Amino acid sequence: MNPAPHHIAVVGATGAVGIEMIKCLEQRDFPLRKLTLLASARSAGKQLPFRGEMITVEELTTESFADVDIALFSAGGGISKTFAPYAVAAGAVVVDNSSAFRMDEGVPLVVPEINPGDAAEHHGIIANPNCTTIVTLMALAPLHQAFGGVECILASSYQAVSGSGAQGIAELEQQVTAIASGQTSPAPKVYSRPIAFNVIPQVDTFLENGYTKEEMKMHFEGQKILHAPELRASVTCVRVPVYRSHAVAVTAIFRDEPSVEAARAALSKAPGVRLMDDPTTTPPTYPTPLDATDGDDCLVGRIRKDLVLDRALTFWVVGDQVRKGAALNAVQIAELL
Amino acid sequence: MNPAPHHIAVVGATGAVGIEMIKCLEQRDFPLRKLTLLASARSAGKQLPFRGEMITVEELTTESFADVDIALFSAGGGISKTFAPYAVAAGAVVVDNSSAFRMDEGVPLVVPEINPGDAAEHHGIIANPNCTTIVTLMALAPLHQAFGGVECILASSYQAVSGSGAQGIAELEQQVTAIASGQTSPAPKVYSRPIAFNVIPQVDTFLENGYTKEEMKMHFEGQKILHAPELRASVTCVRVPVYRSHAVAVTAIFRDEPSVEAARAALSKAPGVRLMDDPTTTPPTYPTPLDATDGDDCLVGRIRKDLVLDRALTFWVVGDQVRKGAALNAVQIAELL
Repeated sequence: MNPAPHHIAVVGATGAVGIEMIKCLEQRDFPLRKLTLLASARSAGKQLPFRGEMITVEELTTESFADVDIALFSAGGGISKTFAPYAVAAGAVVVDNSSAFRMDEGVPLVVPEINPGDAAEHHGIIANPNCTTIVTLMALAPLHQAFGGVECILASSYQAVSGSGAQGIAELEQQVTAIASGQTSPAPKVYSRPIAFNVIPQVDTFLENGYTKEEMKMHFEGQKILHAPELRASVTCVRVPVYRSHAVAVTAIFRDEPSVEAARAALSKAPGVRLMDDPTTTPPTYPTPLDATDGDDCLVGRIRKDLVLDRALTFWVVGDQVRKGAALNAVQIAELL
Repeated sequence: MNPAPHHIAVVGATGAVGIEMIKCLEQRDFPLRKLTLLASARSAGKQLPFRGEMITVEELTTESFADVDIALFSAGGGISKTFAPYAVAAGAVVVDNSSAFRMDEGVPLVVPEINPGDAAEHHGIIANPNCTTIVTLMALAPLHQAFGGVECILASSYQAVSGSGAQGIAELEQQVTAIASGQTSPAPKVYSRPIAFNVIPQVDTFLENGYTKEEMKMHFEGQKILHAPELRASVTCVRVPVYRSHAVAVTAIFRDEPSVEAARAALSKAPGVRLMDDPTTTPPTYPTPLDATDGDDCLVGRIRKDLVLDRALTFWVVGDQVRKGAALNAVQIAELL
C-alpha cells in the first residue's frame, strides 16, 4: 500500500477514545500530510503531542472540514448527527464511532478483520461498531466461518469503566481512593450506583423488551457485520470495577457441529486474535482484562463444548475496548480507505 | 416451635463463614443451651463474642463432640472428611458447608426454602450447597415451580472475593491499597492473576470437559436440590473485585411457556427472595452486590423473555454468599432439625 498522504481530522480529540486514536495514528505510521484536532470550545486551545510536535486543538465548527480527507468522529451521537453531514459535504469520509448511523442503510458497519469489503460501499460515512460487539465478534467471526454460520449468541459482559469515557475512570478512582483511605465514598454521578467493589447490570438505557440498548447492539450490529440477518443475540451487559478492557462470556450456537480443536485452529490463525487457551498449564492459560489492555489483539480462552445447547461452544473473549473496541478499529477503517 | 435447647458446635469458628454462623445464631435467637467454638490449634485460645459473653475457641480434636447436638462445619473439605464421622459417632448431626459429602447418597443437600423435607432423611450428615448454586436456585426454584420445571440453566457469575475466605478479602484490599497509593501491587497469592481492577474467569480447578469444579456444581447440585435429574447447566464462573455478595446472570429454559409477569408474581411471594425489578423507575430498579450484602434475602431483577431460546427467561440474582450462600443456610438447616 502506498497511498497519497491524507489530511485526517479527529473530532473529540481530547476524549479517551480521541487520544487513543491519535496514539494509533502515530504508532501505525499512518500516511498523513496533516492532522487536525477538533473538540468543543471548552477544550479548544489545549495542545496534544503527535510525532514529536504539539498540535493545538481547534473548536469544532461547520467550517472545520475544508481539505479534510478522513474525519474520525468520537464525540457522541449528537455531535456526529450535527457535524458529520458538513464533513461529508466538504468531501471528507467520516468514520464515526458513535451509534448515530450504525444501523442506517447505506452506512457500512465495519470491523476490518471481518467485513473489510463493506467499507467500499459507503456514501461518505462508515460506522464503527459498539465496543462490546467488536470484542465479541473478533472471536466469533472465525468460528462463524468455520462452523457454517452462527445462529444464536448468549452472552454476559464484564465491561470496564473506560467505556464511559474519562468520567467513568475518574468515578471509579475517586470511590476507590475514598474507601481505601477510610473516607465516605463520594456519591455516584456517572453510574446510578457505586461502581467501586460492586457490579452494575446496566449499560445504557432500557428498552421495552427489558433489554438495554447496549445489549441489543450485539443483536442488530452482529446481523449487519456478519451478513447474518437471522442471527439472534441475548445479552446481559454488566459494568465492573475494571479500568480498561471488556470481557465477554459467550455461548454461540452454530449451523454445523463445532469442536474445541477446530475452534482453536480457526482462532489461532485469525488476524487480530490471540488464542490463550490451555486449562492444563500451571497456572491455567486464559486471558483477563489486564492481559488485553493497551494491546491490539482480542484474546480468547475457556473454549469448551456447551453442556446445555446442541451445536454450541462456550468461550471467553477479552479486548481493550478503547483500542480495538473503538480507536484502533476506526483507524483500521481509515487504512482501508 | 418450642424445641429443647441445643448444644451447637461451630467447626472453623474463626473463618469468615464461621464468624457469620455465630452472628446468625445470635441474630436468629437460636434455642441454645451451649455454644462450642472449634478451630485449628493455631486459632485455639482466641475469644469470640456471643450474646454479650466471650467464648474461648477450643482446638478441634476427635473428642470435641461429646454432648454436641448439632455441629456446623465450615473448615474445608479435608477437615469435614476427617472429623465429621467422629461428630456423627458422638451422636451429633453434622451440617457441612464443604463439598465433601454433597453428592453422597444418603446425605441430603438442602436449601431450607426449597427442599426442607429432604433434611429429615439424613444419616447424621446434611450438606450445605455451594454458594453460587444457593444464590441462583433461590431465584430459580420459584420459577421451577411456576413453569412446569426447569430444563436447562445457562449462567455467568460475578463472584466476590469473600468466597475465597479472609485471604481473598485481604488480597483484594492489599492490591487496591498499593495501586491507590501509587505503589507496585503485591504479587497475587490466592488467585493466579491480580484481582484488583481485573476479572478472573476461573473459580476452583479445571475438569477434563473444560469447565471448572465450581461451574459443574450448579449442574450436579441443582439436579439434587430441585429433584430434577434431567436438569443441565452450563456455567462460566468469574471472580470479580467485589468484597461480598455474588451476582449471577441466568438464562433458564422451562417446560411450560414462562412470562415476565408470572415470574414476578412467583418471586414476589417466595420466602427469602426480594424482587427488585422495574426498568421504568428513575433510576431503574435492579439489585447490585452492595444491596445484598449483610442481608438474608436473595435479590432478583432484570427479568425478561429470552430473545434467543424458546420457553426461556433471562434474569439477574444477587445474594450475600457468606450469609445465605453459607452461614445463614447452615443455621436454617439446623433450625429445621
